[in-house]
Amino acid sequence: MRFTTLDQFRSLLDDLPGVDEAAKNGATERNGQLTKPPGALGRLEELAIWYAGWRGDGRPMIERPQVVIFAGNHGVCEQGVSAFPAEVTVQMVANFEHGGAAINQLAGAFGASMDVVALDLDEPTADFTKGPAMTEDEVVAALHAGWDSVDPEADLLVTGEMGIGNTTSAAAMSHALFGGAAEDWVGRGTGVDDAGLANKARVVREGVAVNAPRDALAVLQCLGGREVAGMAGAIARARDLRIPVILDGYICSAAAAVLEETKAGTLDHCVAGHVSAEAAHGILLEKLGKAPLLSLGMRLGEGSGAALAIGVLKGALATHSGMATFAEAGVSDG
Amino acid sequence: MRFTTLDQFRSLLDDLPGVDEAAKNGATERNGQLTKPPGALGRLEELAIWYAGWRGDGRPMIERPQVVIFAGNHGVCEQGVSAFPAEVTVQMVANFEHGGAAINQLAGAFGASMDVVALDLDEPTADFTKGPAMTEDEVVAALHAGWDSVDPEADLLVTGEMGIGNTTSAAAMSHALFGGAAEDWVGRGTGVDDAGLANKARVVREGVAVNAPRDALAVLQCLGGREVAGMAGAIARARDLRIPVILDGYICSAAAAVLEETKAGTLDHCVAGHVSAEAAHGILLEKLGKAPLLSLGMRLGEGSGAALAIGVLKGALATHSGMATFAEAGVSDG
Repeated sequence: MRFTTLDQFRSLLDDLPGVDEAAKNGATERNGQLTKPPGALGRLEELAIWYAGWRGDGRPMIERPQVVIFAGNHGVCEQGVSAFPAEVTVQMVANFEHGGAAINQLAGAFGASMDVVALDLDEPTADFTKGPAMTEDEVVAALHAGWDSVDPEADLLVTGEMGIGNTTSAAAMSHALFGGAAEDWVGRGTGVDDAGLANKARVVREGVAVNAPRDALAVLQCLGGREVAGMAGAIARARDLRIPVILDGYICSAAAAVLEETKAGTLDHCVAGHVSAEAAHGILLEKLGKAPLLSLGMRLGEGSGAALAIGVLKGALATHSGMATFAEAGVSDG
Repeated sequence: MRFTTLDQFRSLLDDLPGVDEAAKNGATERNGQLTKPPGALGRLEELAIWYAGWRGDGRPMIERPQVVIFAGNHGVCEQGVSAFPAEVTVQMVANFEHGGAAINQLAGAFGASMDVVALDLDEPTADFTKGPAMTEDEVVAALHAGWDSVDPEADLLVTGEMGIGNTTSAAAMSHALFGGAAEDWVGRGTGVDDAGLANKARVVREGVAVNAPRDALAVLQCLGGREVAGMAGAIARARDLRIPVILDGYICSAAAAVLEETKAGTLDHCVAGHVSAEAAHGILLEKLGKAPLLSLGMRLGEGSGAALAIGVLKGALATHSGMATFAEAGVSDG
């Protein structure tokens, strides 16, 4: 076990590896020689250089992307925060396992493997309006499940989630981490009405007030969920392995924010795959300093927006690593 | 020959087929039954329904996308409008044919075939500041080359272009079609400086004033180029074959605008793949009523932005046609 307490997990974040500057410089140099006007591929160029730096290879390809979906149940559902009943979590896990969900199709379309990590679905977290959602042992176990889920041979990671009630958890975490009004951080999730929205804001406000978490990892323990902690553990492990990560929507970004608020720079190996239709997600990405690759009004979770962005990143690396240079092609470079 | 004059081409646009409403309705119904909250896949849902309607199949997949790149040379280069010399057009065509360009890599990454149609590269169009860029026979020949380039077995089309000087052509066409100031429609293309930008605006203003084209097809003849007309012909042919089209950047969109301004609704089978870094492209897409799928600061042409958007469309169809319904998966639908 790499960590058995939150303090050990915090220490581990101090020792994660950085980018390979030589590979990054090599990629930057190559980018300048490719048969296109400087900058004409826009963000594809910065993505390729970023990816090359993390992989330690100036001319890499993406060959083994991995999608990991974490599932968990939330005691806060007792507060009536979701349009769907809690049993949908376990039903959707079965759907993932049978290949019928959106994320199965998207992972398949972009050549990613997919793993599902269901975390104690028959044991929801505690209702966080009454106290911490998880004990320290519980949150550490979920972080560790995430840590262990990452394939060391993967060359790109997408983390996704399924957990009825978890947009409320993400809102409470964001409110605790970044302040503002509870109303700024709640949205309609999978489909609550106006009264439901007001109720979510109340629940978020109460959750933060009751728990008053002392730091970002306490936010995760008190207001998060097992699948949220699983994503945080997986994102940290990816950094440990120098595997770049595409962040998904609001809940994934809230999990990632815990790492960044614990140690600034921890998300340097991550790019924001998309900005979701959940308005607070855009605010959260601004706090994290991440500009999304896609903005298509998606709000499904499951890693779906990030999986779609695998295509963008594959396109970036295909051009970077596959194109001819001006010299190779005999093209005048202006 | 389906047309030998611009009048015949205009008549042909009146007879193009429409969307298959039954297939579209079937796709809409299926979309409502899939294992996700209503609307949670955002624009992917509308894309899948749009594509299904044009293909006449409520549950289609994308299996044979085709990229066609048209190349042409522009007499207006004599006015010093480009940062690159005109010989780069023929050099880049060789690069396309040897697989070294960005579009080769992107077509490959998304499983598209790629054809290159080089149109009389040794015979540039006339300098449009002095009169029409092309004779009627020349523009009709280029439209026909585009028409004939589309594979009837393709199920998705991307049209791209290569032609040093053609952002100036696109700017002049847009100014002639939509008015405004010449300055609104010019940008830095592949990299001109401030003085170059002012020169482009002058050239655009003069081109529109000298030619005073009487309708949209005259705009194409007087201010366009062979590769621009080739794209217009291919987009029209795709509609004839009910093959959906992803539009690329500024030059492709200017070609498409000629069709829409000739007969409103002609572009209903088209979606905007991206908005380029060339600021006028965003204005042009607004005129066409097309919201771009991607906004990644690309400005390369070659069909590159549209090719990247093939991934988005493939993702949309993979989810639409591959996901389980609530009934199939035994998931409660809220």
